[in-house]
Amino acid sequence: MSVICVEDPGDSRLVDYTGLTDVELRRRREPAEGLFMAEGEKVIRRALEAGYPMRSMLLSERWLETMAEVIEGTDVPVYVGSPEVVERVTGYQVHRGALASMGRKVLPAVGDLVAGARRVAVLEGVNDHTNVGAIFRGAAALGMDAVLLSPDCADPLYRRSVKVSMGAVFSVPYARLDPWPGGLDVLRGAGLTLLALTPGEGSVALNELPSADTDRCALMLGAEGPGLTAKALAAADRLVRIPMSHGVDSLNVGAAAAVAFYAVAFG
Amino acid sequence: MSVICVEDPGDSRLVDYTGLTDVELRRRREPAEGLFMAEGEKVIRRALEAGYPMRSMLLSERWLETMAEVIEGTDVPVYVGSPEVVERVTGYQVHRGALASMGRKVLPAVGDLVAGARRVAVLEGVNDHTNVGAIFRGAAALGMDAVLLSPDCADPLYRRSVKVSMGAVFSVPYARLDPWPGGLDVLRGAGLTLLALTPGEGSVALNELPSADTDRCALMLGAEGPGLTAKALAAADRLVRIPMSHGVDSLNVGAAAAVAFYAVAFG
Repeated sequence: MSVICVEDPGDSRLVDYTGLTDVELRRRREPAEGLFMAEGEKVIRRALEAGYPMRSMLLSERWLETMAEVIEGTDVPVYVGSPEVVERVTGYQVHRGALASMGRKVLPAVGDLVAGARRVAVLEGVNDHTNVGAIFRGAAALGMDAVLLSPDCADPLYRRSVKVSMGAVFSVPYARLDPWPGGLDVLRGAGLTLLALTPGEGSVALNELPSADTDRCALMLGAEGPGLTAKALAAADRLVRIPMSHGVDSLNVGAAAAVAFYAVAFG
Repeated sequence: MSVICVEDPGDSRLVDYTGLTDVELRRRREPAEGLFMAEGEKVIRRALEAGYPMRSMLLSERWLETMAEVIEGTDVPVYVGSPEVVERVTGYQVHRGALASMGRKVLPAVGDLVAGARRVAVLEGVNDHTNVGAIFRGAAALGMDAVLLSPDCADPLYRRSVKVSMGAVFSVPYARLDPWPGGLDVLRGAGLTLLALTPGEGSVALNELPSADTDRCALMLGAEGPGLTAKALAAADRLVRIPMSHGVDSLNVGAAAAVAFYAVAFG
């Protein structure tokens, strides 16, 4: 272990941690630089257990003790500063006291992910980190084997996604589908039935689907509001819907995803 | 209609609208004074359509036009001020520009609510406004006939609950169950089977319940974290659970409620 006290918020060794409140900046920077932020002891531990390599940590002084075990187990630099210094670097009060800059892993190939899968989720254009996190949490709880993301989906490893997912982004394997929606052919080739969730006309209620359609399936979900695009709908084998009462607003996408995951697995 | 310009944030006629950011204060005041806040044109309209009486409105100047139709239809005072005055009264920037102080209605008797009901939700100790709102949204979408609340549940008419519910708190009838859990006897007396959602031992997976148990049922849900209390579990006819993968965090209560509502209705 190597604990290094920092007093200068401009210290160039802290560059991984700058401007954390600037979502647009971090959205570009983190994938480009191959890193993501793990915040708080639990999340850092889960990221390490999932095999993500740590680049460094940044702690407020009084969190040294809580983080002792993690610190002892690593050789990367552990930067320690006053709460004020940490706040000036990151741009916010780090309530959980500990940040780790983690390296990304190469995403698995789509073909490998879906080869033995029974049920996978496919997200199109879900560009809200909270919704991505909520969907991963539901996917983990309800036994989806993988999540596949269109190129314009938000990053599952962004700080907010990780938090809302309760760490499920580390346990549910995922990959990007590119080209979109052409990449869906790999899923169909693996024997998965493509089910597109949409309230529109011509859709079959999930509780009325024949089991042949749900035995091995890919459940496609769009963003809250716009839903799946016309080209995604056209690429599906079957349009499906959650049977809902008339005249009321639909479920939010996290709840809708959980209901649909339940329906294809157990319904 | 009577439009009144206000310039003094201390104007005593604006007392309904003071301290809106103080959740603890408003949590006490609103039920005690028989009022609640509707925010934004859509919510105000939905509250009126649901038969809640308006006491007054408070608008930023530039919202007069948007609200013209609502204003023309009412005789109550419509206070209009600059954005700065409105912010000084309420304590925050009212982005939706329009607030209405609405009167509460007497809640229906539990016996009347459940008499013809097929499926109702029962909440115990759900004291988070966001979660209450999310559960109402799911209840509306998935056709629950009513929601019954233990005495310590958060107020469905609190501003945050209304917003998250997308107005479903106005369309799904609800009442308080008091005493708790003794009041559950009324539900059983009406022929409803009491199903307690709990991940604990002895629970039956929702997808394995006989249809006799779900034909007419009351689905009991506890708060995220603690779940249902021992006395609530003891009062139930059957313990049920969402079949979930091992070793992962559970769903959040909004998603869990939606899955359970789906399961008893369609699963």
